[in-house]
Amino acid sequence: MIQEGSRVLLLTERKKRYLVRVKPGVRFHTSEGYIDLSELIGKRYGTRLTSNIGSVWFALKPTILDIIMKMPRPTQIVYPKDLGAIITLGNIRPGSRVLEAGTGSGVLTAVIASYVMPDGIVYSYDISEEYLENARKQLDELGLLPYVVLKQGDVTARIEERDLDTVVLDIPTPWLAVQNVYEALSDGGIFISLSPTIEQVIETVDAIGSNGFADITTIELLMRTLRVKRGMTRPDHIMRAHTVYITTARKVCRDSLSY
Amino acid sequence: MIQEGSRVLLLTERKKRYLVRVKPGVRFHTSEGYIDLSELIGKRYGTRLTSNIGSVWFALKPTILDIIMKMPRPTQIVYPKDLGAIITLGNIRPGSRVLEAGTGSGVLTAVIASYVMPDGIVYSYDISEEYLENARKQLDELGLLPYVVLKQGDVTARIEERDLDTVVLDIPTPWLAVQNVYEALSDGGIFISLSPTIEQVIETVDAIGSNGFADITTIELLMRTLRVKRGMTRPDHIMRAHTVYITTARKVCRDSLSY
Amino acid sequence: MIQEGSRVLLLTERKKRYLVRVKPGVRFHTSEGYIDLSELIGKRYGTRLTSNIGSVWFALKPTILDIIMKMPRPTQIVYPKDLGAIITLGNIRPGSRVLEAGTGSGVLTAVIASYVMPDGIVYSYDISEEYLENARKQLDELGLLPYVVLKQGDVTARIEERDLDTVVLDIPTPWLAVQNVYEALSDGGIFISLSPTIEQVIETVDAIGSNGFADITTIELLMRTLRVKRGMTRPDHIMRAHTVYITTARKVCRDSLSY
Amino acid sequence: MIQEGSRVLLLTERKKRYLVRVKPGVRFHTSEGYIDLSELIGKRYGTRLTSNIGSVWFALKPTILDIIMKMPRPTQIVYPKDLGAIITLGNIRPGSRVLEAGTGSGVLTAVIASYVMPDGIVYSYDISEEYLENARKQLDELGLLPYVVLKQGDVTARIEERDLDTVVLDIPTPWLAVQNVYEALSDGGIFISLSPTIEQVIETVDAIGSNGFADITTIELLMRTLRVKRGMTRPDHIMRAHTVYITTARKVCRDSLSY
Repeated sequence: MIQEGSRVLLLTERKKRYLVRVKPGVRFHTSEGYIDLSELIGKRYGTRLTSNIGSVWFALKPTILDIIMKMPRPTQIVYPKDLGAIITLGNIRPGSRVLEAGTGSGVLTAVIASYVMPDGIVYSYDISEEYLENARKQLDELGLLPYVVLKQGDVTARIEERDLDTVVLDIPTPWLAVQNVYEALSDGGIFISLSPTIEQVIETVDAIGSNGFADITTIELLMRTLRVKRGMTRPDHIMRAHTVYITTARKVCRDSLSY
Repeated sequence: MIQEGSRVLLLTERKKRYLVRVKPGVRFHTSEGYIDLSELIGKRYGTRLTSNIGSVWFALKPTILDIIMKMPRPTQIVYPKDLGAIITLGNIRPGSRVLEAGTGSGVLTAVIASYVMPDGIVYSYDISEEYLENARKQLDELGLLPYVVLKQGDVTARIEERDLDTVVLDIPTPWLAVQNVYEALSDGGIFISLSPTIEQVIETVDAIGSNGFADITTIELLMRTLRVKRGMTRPDHIMRAHTVYITTARKVCRDSLSY
Repeated sequence: MIQEGSRVLLLTERKKRYLVRVKPGVRFHTSEGYIDLSELIGKRYGTRLTSNIGSVWFALKPTILDIIMKMPRPTQIVYPKDLGAIITLGNIRPGSRVLEAGTGSGVLTAVIASYVMPDGIVYSYDISEEYLENARKQLDELGLLPYVVLKQGDVTARIEERDLDTVVLDIPTPWLAVQNVYEALSDGGIFISLSPTIEQVIETVDAIGSNGFADITTIELLMRTLRVKRGMTRPDHIMRAHTVYITTARKVCRDSLSY
Repeated sequence: MIQEGSRVLLLTERKKRYLVRVKPGVRFHTSEGYIDLSELIGKRYGTRLTSNIGSVWFALKPTILDIIMKMPRPTQIVYPKDLGAIITLGNIRPGSRVLEAGTGSGVLTAVIASYVMPDGIVYSYDISEEYLENARKQLDELGLLPYVVLKQGDVTARIEERDLDTVVLDIPTPWLAVQNVYEALSDGGIFISLSPTIEQVIETVDAIGSNGFADITTIELLMRTLRVKRGMTRPDHIMRAHTVYITTARKVCRDSLSY
């Protein structure tokens, strides 16, 4: 049931999405007309609305991903298509101990936190106090702060944690952090790095290949949406052609057995 | 530390992957030579091995995904690139109440269970007792059975659960289950369907569009791997061009507000 | 050497492309400033220009494709990435006898004509006199009219030509023309059909499969552009995800040999 | 009509393709049985055959591309999906004067020759006499030798021709040939380079950007085939993920006009 203070995702007839918080006496205006938010109070999620100019909307219950993707973004964010791959390829699960750098907008932090909870933890480093402060507010509002330790610091200089399950780097020079990541990971721990350019990937793969990692893989994901309508079905005309390359590797050790 | 009875993922020099259980006195043979599994006992995960013919391997700690993807497969399985999208687009998180059909090999069941634990639950339906029995064994061995309720039944005929967060259909005729899924989902609950053919997608989207769902989206994910090697970097030559289309939608209700 | 009346392709600093005809005393205005076209007279193609506000441009010699792609477009046009495939998969070569329908904007007509010349011919059908008239003007200006016979007519009703090498259909209901195309093609002649929707493809493949064609193939081409810049190389962010499906087939005959 | 000595493309029931030359008294054996080639004499192209074990085949008229793609291949060849783009992006048309290096298997040479004929010419350089000799035989048999000048030489050392319309480089170090290509091209001439690795692309784009070229573009083409069958339509499972990057640019000159 939608209540005063509830968050609602408004999906308009033209497929626009607005995340609003329900307050009495507030009109929410869009290019497709307005609705009075107070009218939502007491209604079920999924209620159908008609704006003052006749546009049909739905008042959806936002998923945590909906909310996260609407967070203010001081920095470039990770795209939804890549988030699932990071979670599964990174073996990030309830209970995992994960380090992430940089915190940036906190979007990836929030997603990871929502998958390691209730028993796991995310250590999230950023060099910018301002980004950390912004992320703290967002995570707090999302109820995810208990699962996150925000740390001001530079992972290319120092990582304090040990025995981590996964380290996710979303920084410009991941190759400079490889030795620190090695020390911080548990045996069998997983390294993931996100980089937009191919030169960053080459540097990173070079560094991990000579610093105690194996099973190194770099992928890119392309997501295509379809317009499905009987008799008129086709892929949509435009798609995102690139976001980041995702490189994964596993920590290995050096004591050798020969036969 | 690797112990007797531990599972180990052997990664060979030619990038073959073997999931083994460590037993004393057993030799593990491959086309790249053999190793004595008893030698692994007491070693750290990530240990480097050399087979009897000089091939260099690593004894990796398997992730849950490694283990799941090596489960016996009586049926077609969901690909890793799609698993992450199902988890994130389906809003499947620790604590979620999810229904899945059909159980099939139990691969998707296991992955979902590993993300809803420790407080969530997966109801997994299949019409085949045999598949359910096989899945039960696998889930038990993975320690995931406490988070799964396996049910013999046909979701196109009946779904008993109510107030589910997410329903994931991996069946040949998802459109026949749409009305049952609608009843089973909570307000704002998410419907996901996986189908290999475009005709299945068209039928499904048609059915959900006229049965109380909104925000209907169909996507496909293409994953490209890269060979990263300084001076010789390029995408790999071959890729999987198709697995399944993923259709998502959200339950909406019919009481209408107009202005 | 650029002369009065020459066509020039202006490539601006921001990668905009303008096709102009050089006339004395004319200023060509853009959002990046203007140039006086008369200044181009007597200059070499490839000359570098600076607009009045300091934007650096090039005065390029337009290729025939540049000119064709800037033709007025009353209808949807075929994309450059698909044109090459149509030419090569269609076995369209100097000397080929090709039928095309519909003429539409004449873009595909012009491209085909430019590859069958000087000894081949394109029969181009359209039901719209207006489209044909527009195409005639464009083809005339391009000097390609001698290689084209424009015909008012409906290929689903009748095709007059015989012994054609290739038939290219870019019409909404290609399946209705299949029998006529069969009669019009020579032994071994090639059928190509362009369709934006998957339902059109299914109907068409169904029709050709039961009407004397073999070697039926449907493809789609995805073109990705790269931003290549040392240290910052990556695919461009946005790409066209869909234009048309291209279906090809070859005419076969029915007299059977058995062993 | 198929005659003694004709080339025929046999398309088998399992979609295998065999290019044969019809000779009396010869049996052509495959894993799907055999046929007597002499039976083909006097039959129409497109004739349906049944092999001795009941497999249904077609005796198709080979296109020039069919024949070219079956040429012996001492070197890596260019893929059909890329050939059309090279022809159209390279502005290669009947009458064009084109330089190509290296000749390699002669596949690309043959394709270009078949599009510049009857009035154009291809200068094809290779450093290997052996490759040139092999290409000469193939081109002769295809009837394309009159449109090709095969030259033993290294384009990174010297190009003798001038006023070329297009230069196509398919060599390991295209960046070393850029200055020579510049001299050889006419004003507005087009440079195309094919490279499998991203590092080659970066070097090449760097070199052309600082040596008198503009409108520099790098693309890759992905071709996906579809299995079209009513009720079971989907993309094929496997595709080629990479062949070459195609870089194009246009020669520009340095005399500058400012306003």
